[in-house]
Amino acid sequence: MEHTYRLVIACPDKVGIVARVSNFISEYKGWLTEASYHSERDSGFFFMRNEILANSLTIGLREFQSAFAKIAEEYQMEWFVADSTVRKKVVILASHASHCLADILYRWHSEELHCDIAAVIANHDNLRGMVEWHNIPFHHVPVEPGKKQGHFTRVEALLDQYQAETVVLARYMQILPPHLCERYAGNMINIHHSFLPSFVGANPYYQAYDRGVKLIGATCHYVTQNLDQGPIIEQDVERVNHRHNKEDLVRLGRDVEKIVLARGLRYHLEDRVVIHGNKTVIFD
Amino acid sequence: MEHTYRLVIACPDKVGIVARVSNFISEYKGWLTEASYHSERDSGFFFMRNEILANSLTIGLREFQSAFAKIAEEYQMEWFVADSTVRKKVVILASHASHCLADILYRWHSEELHCDIAAVIANHDNLRGMVEWHNIPFHHVPVEPGKKQGHFTRVEALLDQYQAETVVLARYMQILPPHLCERYAGNMINIHHSFLPSFVGANPYYQAYDRGVKLIGATCHYVTQNLDQGPIIEQDVERVNHRHNKEDLVRLGRDVEKIVLARGLRYHLEDRVVIHGNKTVIFD
Amino acid sequence: MEHTYRLVIACPDKVGIVARVSNFISEYKGWLTEASYHSERDSGFFFMRNEILANSLTIGLREFQSAFAKIAEEYQMEWFVADSTVRKKVVILASHASHCLADILYRWHSEELHCDIAAVIANHDNLRGMVEWHNIPFHHVPVEPGKKQGHFTRVEALLDQYQAETVVLARYMQILPPHLCERYAGNMINIHHSFLPSFVGANPYYQAYDRGVKLIGATCHYVTQNLDQGPIIEQDVERVNHRHNKEDLVRLGRDVEKIVLARGLRYHLEDRVVIHGNKTVIFD
Amino acid sequence: MEHTYRLVIACPDKVGIVARVSNFISEYKGWLTEASYHSERDSGFFFMRNEILANSLTIGLREFQSAFAKIAEEYQMEWFVADSTVRKKVVILASHASHCLADILYRWHSEELHCDIAAVIANHDNLRGMVEWHNIPFHHVPVEPGKKQGHFTRVEALLDQYQAETVVLARYMQILPPHLCERYAGNMINIHHSFLPSFVGANPYYQAYDRGVKLIGATCHYVTQNLDQGPIIEQDVERVNHRHNKEDLVRLGRDVEKIVLARGLRYHLEDRVVIHGNKTVIFD
Repeated sequence: MEHTYRLVIACPDKVGIVARVSNFISEYKGWLTEASYHSERDSGFFFMRNEILANSLTIGLREFQSAFAKIAEEYQMEWFVADSTVRKKVVILASHASHCLADILYRWHSEELHCDIAAVIANHDNLRGMVEWHNIPFHHVPVEPGKKQGHFTRVEALLDQYQAETVVLARYMQILPPHLCERYAGNMINIHHSFLPSFVGANPYYQAYDRGVKLIGATCHYVTQNLDQGPIIEQDVERVNHRHNKEDLVRLGRDVEKIVLARGLRYHLEDRVVIHGNKTVIFD
Repeated sequence: MEHTYRLVIACPDKVGIVARVSNFISEYKGWLTEASYHSERDSGFFFMRNEILANSLTIGLREFQSAFAKIAEEYQMEWFVADSTVRKKVVILASHASHCLADILYRWHSEELHCDIAAVIANHDNLRGMVEWHNIPFHHVPVEPGKKQGHFTRVEALLDQYQAETVVLARYMQILPPHLCERYAGNMINIHHSFLPSFVGANPYYQAYDRGVKLIGATCHYVTQNLDQGPIIEQDVERVNHRHNKEDLVRLGRDVEKIVLARGLRYHLEDRVVIHGNKTVIFD
Repeated sequence: MEHTYRLVIACPDKVGIVARVSNFISEYKGWLTEASYHSERDSGFFFMRNEILANSLTIGLREFQSAFAKIAEEYQMEWFVADSTVRKKVVILASHASHCLADILYRWHSEELHCDIAAVIANHDNLRGMVEWHNIPFHHVPVEPGKKQGHFTRVEALLDQYQAETVVLARYMQILPPHLCERYAGNMINIHHSFLPSFVGANPYYQAYDRGVKLIGATCHYVTQNLDQGPIIEQDVERVNHRHNKEDLVRLGRDVEKIVLARGLRYHLEDRVVIHGNKTVIFD
Repeated sequence: MEHTYRLVIACPDKVGIVARVSNFISEYKGWLTEASYHSERDSGFFFMRNEILANSLTIGLREFQSAFAKIAEEYQMEWFVADSTVRKKVVILASHASHCLADILYRWHSEELHCDIAAVIANHDNLRGMVEWHNIPFHHVPVEPGKKQGHFTRVEALLDQYQAETVVLARYMQILPPHLCERYAGNMINIHHSFLPSFVGANPYYQAYDRGVKLIGATCHYVTQNLDQGPIIEQDVERVNHRHNKEDLVRLGRDVEKIVLARGLRYHLEDRVVIHGNKTVIFD
């Protein structure tokens, strides 16, 4: 993996932004390995992602950041620049279903997902062996009847302890309290096991079965306070037919969920997602 | 196209149905070109479609029907047998959008869809030339403000006049009165321009755009009194991204709509659909 | 459709290209509606497409071109700038199969494909009615046994007469002489009815059937002297299974062919394709 | 998982086969949970798969087999009946790439694939930890330069020792000697990392990159003596574009390979595949 800086920008659209930013990069001899732009006509907003070879630049990251801040102010940019070699600290929340967790662990272990998995927290204990085999701390934080609040307090303490930057809900199945959604806004990723906005809420495959749909899907989205309503990162579907019963839908759905969550998480980890309102720009 | 009889059956499941039916066919020397069976465990229902070479049988269609009626009664079957050479009379209802209509006309003209298109009825006049070039009667039945009932009365009279057996709503965009839905239950096919149950109602592509989905879709379904709730025949999707504006979604959607409607209509015309409750079994 | 200029560039990669080009555009107040960049590490080549609102520029197209020529020379660019309102002159070559031709004519007629269809030339006469209904000249140029050369001479004369800029082989099924491929290099588009490089040559669906593949496909590519070897613009596939016979593959294939050719042609007409060696960059 | 018997049949087509077989099943009160039929017109062959609830039958498996043998002889059937609770003994051959192996192990561990994984044999040692964590014996059988024969002798001895019924080549990357292909004909499954017949042989992703294809694929097939030419069980593709370099194709391809191999292996383990000549009928 190359050492690059990722400069990600959103701002009101205006003539000359690309020129201004690319001049800046060029001035410091920055070699672009990727450059992506998007101008959204409806909202009058402009989005940009530049990936620059770190060792082509005549200045370091901090100098780059402070120099760029002036341009950013001038154009009212929301922006950041990320170092590709600085791995995000990820904490995964799970329940008892293993497929999404196993898939993420495999991709992390095989160096396909570049991040640090700091810990896995689950409200069941059955996935401990799989997690610990990867030398990742596993915390069993049960959800006791009538004591949900205690569960969330403990989860938040662990997120603090591990300094979680990105939180992945890998079929966690609990509705987080609003202040946690707020706190990790734009950094907490969920996989919903339906093609949203179809079948929000519980048991989407059973809902899909009862409706007789011919495709089932999965949706990877950022978590917001409104359940299943957050910005969508990625979706995909799988064809089904009358021969598939509810259990078949669940089985087929697992593969879609895994793939969709892996893609969505990868976009996030590589700083390819810009959230704008309730939508995302994905510079894939 | 071969001359076949299509024997389509739905009944409560029971040991020996396949044996009973296939004995019957075999007794009259029927050669099966296709045979499809489905046993739905949840509902305890059994579905079957046999396609039999007409000239292999030692009896004719009527004799076949009256002989089979006894078995049908014994097993409480809902059933019919259709002659592949008897083309269904189809009337298409349209508005001003041409893509679905043009696609059906093309497939009919090139002998891909086996049916008689008896007439096209539209509440705009712009598609007249295209329809008449195919030597199909075109009726412009406008929808006048405050006089919707008059429109539907005229439409129904035309359906009667042309003895419509199958009605296709090719982006017709009007909500039909309940008694018409009822009258053509199981024989009236709509194309909805979203992946149902997402985005029911008006302007689904705009809804999809606002929700920021990553796939758009279309749904071909039988019309029932509950808008967009009827049994689904076929669905498909197309990938979209942030670069696509509302007009792009509409454009990309047109191709999905055409394909999905054509597939659904073909299943219906070839007697491949069995409706059971609010779901379909498709023997494709 | 907006009035834009499309500036398309390919050149050896180098620090500062984006800055140089975007400065140029910005200097003349050009408002970017789209901007796409690609840096190909293997070949060290850089590709760029900028779409600029015509009426935002302080200069006209000619002035723009001559001013830009200096930058182009400096960076050894292959480049052009196209006016979105200047429609390319397209001549379609066909045989007797109607599906691709009908699809292109429909998309042109419904203003989805922005071009002028100057004429259709076919070696059968059966598509005349469909073409002439669109008020497009139709030329029947038969291929007589042992007189292929005469056919091609006549075809070339017609291409000259209509000043063809883009030539579309809509299931034309004839192998063009090398000098014609050469003459229209990068401007002659073919649809091959297989997922290339599988099943080059004749009867690809029959080859696919005999091989027992589970997906069939179609490939839209630029024509070169080496049959079925030119740069690929677009491909897609459709799932098939053992129940599909050869005729079914042909039928299913028609839909893939139409869609793939329409997409490829649209990319070409909108100047979204850059050919580099035997590959394409598609700025979709 | 239900206890069923799977009766799988291939024979020359003839009037009355379905009747004869379903009578037989019905006579012994067999309850069909699935029944699939296929009549191939070209070859005049008939294929059938019946899945029968074991405890609905009035006779046991052996009695069933000997009773059915008479019918089978009469109709010149190739046939077998398999007990769903008898798990096939699977030996996996691997090299150093982990993705397909990890995926199969996960699906086996989570009870999605019903089989016994008797052992994993690999010519590298790096996957030992992953395999042994699943309590499956791992054998490192290196391929030493100039001593390939020794490797294969050892592999065959291990297949004997574990009484392998099904052999899975999970990116094994070695060309097996003909007698081994012969010995496990119809029971040895390979995953080829291209959409066959495109890109046979080595480094298919690099070949695909050089050809500039717009979709990459994977093919699961039975191994025969002719490399990459055996009967295809399953295929799928993934869309790629000019932004993907060779490494991206490899990464994207891994997901397709895993899914395609898992589907193909599942069909095989559930006795859903009938091989006929160089093609397969898949009763999915």
